Amino acid sequence: MEHLTTSLDVLFILLGAILVLFMHAGFAFLEVGTVQHKNQVNALVKIMTDLGVSTVAYFFIGYGVSYGVFLGFNLDGQLTQMMTEKSGYELVKFFFLMTFAAAIPAIVSGGIAERAKFYPVLMATFLTVAFVYPFFEGLAWNGNFGFQDWLKESFGAGFHDFAGSVVVHAVGGWIALAAILVLGARHNRYNQDGTIRHVYPPSSIPFLALGAWILSVGWFGFNVMSAQTIEGIQGLVAMNSLMAMVGGIIAATVVGDKDPGFVHNGPLAGLVAICAGSDVVSPLGALVIGLVAGAMFVKAFTWTQNKLKVDDVLGVWPLHGLCGLWGAIAAGIFGSAALGGLGGVSLMSQIIGALVGVLVAFVGGWIIYKLVQKTMGLRMSDEDQYLGADLSIHKIHANPPREEF
Amino acid sequence: MEHLTTSLDVLFILLGAILVLFMHAGFAFLEVGTVQHKNQVNALVKIMTDLGVSTVAYFFIGYGVSYGVFLGFNLDGQLTQMMTEKSGYELVKFFFLMTFAAAIPAIVSGGIAERAKFYPVLMATFLTVAFVYPFFEGLAWNGNFGFQDWLKESFGAGFHDFAGSVVVHAVGGWIALAAILVLGARHNRYNQDGTIRHVYPPSSIPFLALGAWILSVGWFGFNVMSAQTIEGIQGLVAMNSLMAMVGGIIAATVVGDKDPGFVHNGPLAGLVAICAGSDVVSPLGALVIGLVAGAMFVKAFTWTQNKLKVDDVLGVWPLHGLCGLWGAIAAGIFGSAALGGLGGVSLMSQIIGALVGVLVAFVGGWIIYKLVQKTMGLRMSDEDQYLGADLSIHKIHANPPREEF
Amino acid sequence: MEHLTTSLDVLFILLGAILVLFMHAGFAFLEVGTVQHKNQVNALVKIMTDLGVSTVAYFFIGYGVSYGVFLGFNLDGQLTQMMTEKSGYELVKFFFLMTFAAAIPAIVSGGIAERAKFYPVLMATFLTVAFVYPFFEGLAWNGNFGFQDWLKESFGAGFHDFAGSVVVHAVGGWIALAAILVLGARHNRYNQDGTIRHVYPPSSIPFLALGAWILSVGWFGFNVMSAQTIEGIQGLVAMNSLMAMVGGIIAATVVGDKDPGFVHNGPLAGLVAICAGSDVVSPLGALVIGLVAGAMFVKAFTWTQNKLKVDDVLGVWPLHGLCGLWGAIAAGIFGSAALGGLGGVSLMSQIIGALVGVLVAFVGGWIIYKLVQKTMGLRMSDEDQYLGADLSIHKIHANPPREEF
Repeated sequence: MEHLTTSLDVLFILLGAILVLFMHAGFAFLEVGTVQHKNQVNALVKIMTDLGVSTVAYFFIGYGVSYGVFLGFNLDGQLTQMMTEKSGYELVKFFFLMTFAAAIPAIVSGGIAERAKFYPVLMATFLTVAFVYPFFEGLAWNGNFGFQDWLKESFGAGFHDFAGSVVVHAVGGWIALAAILVLGARHNRYNQDGTIRHVYPPSSIPFLALGAWILSVGWFGFNVMSAQTIEGIQGLVAMNSLMAMVGGIIAATVVGDKDPGFVHNGPLAGLVAICAGSDVVSPLGALVIGLVAGAMFVKAFTWTQNKLKVDDVLGVWPLHGLCGLWGAIAAGIFGSAALGGLGGVSLMSQIIGALVGVLVAFVGGWIIYKLVQKTMGLRMSDEDQYLGADLSIHKIHANPPREEF
Repeated sequence: MEHLTTSLDVLFILLGAILVLFMHAGFAFLEVGTVQHKNQVNALVKIMTDLGVSTVAYFFIGYGVSYGVFLGFNLDGQLTQMMTEKSGYELVKFFFLMTFAAAIPAIVSGGIAERAKFYPVLMATFLTVAFVYPFFEGLAWNGNFGFQDWLKESFGAGFHDFAGSVVVHAVGGWIALAAILVLGARHNRYNQDGTIRHVYPPSSIPFLALGAWILSVGWFGFNVMSAQTIEGIQGLVAMNSLMAMVGGIIAATVVGDKDPGFVHNGPLAGLVAICAGSDVVSPLGALVIGLVAGAMFVKAFTWTQNKLKVDDVLGVWPLHGLCGLWGAIAAGIFGSAALGGLGGVSLMSQIIGALVGVLVAFVGGWIIYKLVQKTMGLRMSDEDQYLGADLSIHKIHANPPREEF
Repeated sequence: MEHLTTSLDVLFILLGAILVLFMHAGFAFLEVGTVQHKNQVNALVKIMTDLGVSTVAYFFIGYGVSYGVFLGFNLDGQLTQMMTEKSGYELVKFFFLMTFAAAIPAIVSGGIAERAKFYPVLMATFLTVAFVYPFFEGLAWNGNFGFQDWLKESFGAGFHDFAGSVVVHAVGGWIALAAILVLGARHNRYNQDGTIRHVYPPSSIPFLALGAWILSVGWFGFNVMSAQTIEGIQGLVAMNSLMAMVGGIIAATVVGDKDPGFVHNGPLAGLVAICAGSDVVSPLGALVIGLVAGAMFVKAFTWTQNKLKVDDVLGVWPLHGLCGLWGAIAAGIFGSAALGGLGGVSLMSQIIGALVGVLVAFVGGWIIYKLVQKTMGLRMSDEDQYLGADLSIHKIHANPPREEF
């Protein structure tokens, strides 16, 4: 019986890991569809190689930073022990948490698309997943440095971020913002007076939509399996994810006037926002959280591009950075028993936790991308941007001419 | 132990819900690949927004019509109670059943493609999922109005529709037929003398195939998880789904002479037909059911388009409407012990149940689409159809020109 | 409790079957993206129909050859009994193993792409899945003819191939090599002096990448669920699959100089290689196995195309044939306790087992494709190749002209 429960825990968290691994294909196609045709190959290669580098970074360093276990070095035979102990549960847990960590460069990738050099970005990915992400992950999910204890003592409840509205999404979004600011806008994106010079419409709405669908479906693993053991499973988490997703769809469709880019980012906005509180808010609260997130994404995306002149290609800062923040705060609001939630949350802890996450992410991201910029160079030349990342970096088009000679 | 079983029930039905949610991406790409390039965006947006509206309709009204539980209104705190009771099992069950309900507009969408207005169709979606679908769902799956009791008393067995050959597919297909007839054929599809004027080949066989694959894979969740609890799982259901799918592939390939549209709708035809009897027929019976369905789809599709002059773009009436009917009847035939089945089915009950389903669907569909047509208008102007739904409704192409200014 | 465990076994192996079924969509899109645009439809139709024919072949013959159970004939009512016994576990086990068997023609398909006739290849698929594949499957996984006993007695351990580096991948790759040699190179691929005449670049990197992602994600079902029962689940298998996949990504990216075809085949190379030893090597060993496989694929692919003049379109012989061999040998090396593995493997048994697999595959494949060539003809005419398999066989393009008349 005990062995069966352990086996089921392995299966449970493995299913989560598989679903979140699949989300990386979603990140890839969301970016492929949104960037220009001449940068599609680069989008695909970035997501795949970011996953590879993230795994190595998290295995050797990051997981140790957050949870004190430096798996890759097999200190005191820790790794060897995990191979057979508890049917290997600790290894699959690493796999599951790694797919979260690897979401950070996947989020950033969409923001800095179409103008960044290849290996320098991989280096930044390594540093981000090894140090910045796990630092805040450790604060929020492992209570490192007494962060959670302090919040509990001060405000009656710790920082509640069940599946990572802040730990993953806001952190990813704010690192992306730092990277975008370091990198600058795409060549010819804005005129010198700050007006928009070129609009680059998505190259493929079907690929964009495919990415959104894969992300949405995989997200149920992201959220539900964050319980980490089968006996912790909550149907409420799945239901709330659905309701927030739907809220996001509806609001983005109406506010975004049926634009397919908005319609397909709407569910993602809702899902980003529900991560934090999916285990404590009511389904009606989740619907409202999603509605707000969907509308907020549409407004913030337009504002980012047109007013702030921040050239965030996929709108990852509005999507992950802002909706993630909203998610943490919303968990503090709709999680309260007064609004139908299960209680046990503190709005103040939510705000402080979210702001600390944003701070760690933005500062950490800025330092890393600046460092890489200074040492390796980060920005493709104007000529290479004009040619496209596909030809200039990968020597091939997404759809090469039929015959080469 | 009891808690473990409950947790496993939540996991089980959640996996079904995730797989059927993924099927909606399949519906989207099947339609994207089949419609003209100028209507691809519209196909994608319809499926995503239909899901959103269906969830709301089923949450507030539909689920109450079928099962007496009006979740969205939280009467007597029902919804609040479900949040913590039985690990939230009832909420995930709603999620699972909602993904079925939302299949109705997804089926209809393929039939009325390329010529319907946007918000009016969403309104029809709302009404269909709120009232028509759950009315028959309640008859068949909840025994409302003593429907099942009456059949049992009269013919020895109730209407057996394990995973919804009729409840979902035939109902969807016959609502689609009503909608298609109300809406009329696409501009320039037929000449005034009834001969075909324009053939519109599929815009993308790869997207069509992608949709078919996603649907086929997700279908195993649709069928197997219809058991709703882990201890009710039957390997037989999975095996029969496979055999019917394969029968559909083979028959559609041979009868359809290797046409890729037929080859990829073949497995779907088999899977539609096996839903009803997947828990009672033998694998050899399932193979025959699939073979018949695959051949029937090819023949009926051609007949619909060329003889009946019914402009059913994806052939959803032959696929879901007719193969669904065949599935219910086939369950009555191959489910009998004499033909290797597990017995306990009545052919007469199957026929009556199927006909009632068709009647409810066709009449209900007709009323709703007529109502929407009269009040909001349903049909795009000829000019808009010529321009395409993408540009006229969504202001963007599937693959927009590389630079707009 | 016993019933619950049985139900969980059904669910466990069903999830594996669903994930591996999904891999077939991956095979389809990997081929669609890699072949020329004029052969995309043919790629899709081949994978779908190969699945149909494989199921029938394995149901009626192949499963009997490997495990002595001729399901399709229901001898002594075996099939009937399985319908209700153990919640139908044996039927889902068949489904799971069938998805492995059907991988053989899916692998071959990529090697012989763009020049093979349709029905003759389906005939070869039938014979391969009915006889060649299950013959070695039976030797390795069912110990037929005392093969495993003899190895155990001779070398202290049997042939260890946990998830089929050889049983599935090397066998598929070497059958493909035989088929490619029988079939000959594509028209105009090489000049008479053996130099390359035409390079055919991939038609769609996004589809190629989509295929690679689906394969990679599904692979976790391929490997983990090879335990076949829930209590046999090992987190180690999942972790090792991840590490080998990542090793493959990194090595293929560096050695293949960021070429997107290599970057996306890299994870597959790692995953092919880890199948055999995923339950016995350490995660660090798995990383090395993947790194070697990724590099080996890049080098061997180039060598196959440019030096050997073997026109293996997707490089399935390097990918499955060679990396599969490497996987079996690597399990013998890194599985030893001295290198951090769990022990219980013999390098000599690994080498012998792998070579026997290769021999069975190559000779069996050669005989079948020669037989089909002599009786039905195997090769498309030069004119048909020039026109493309899509138009010449399926009478339609992947993206047909918008209006036909």
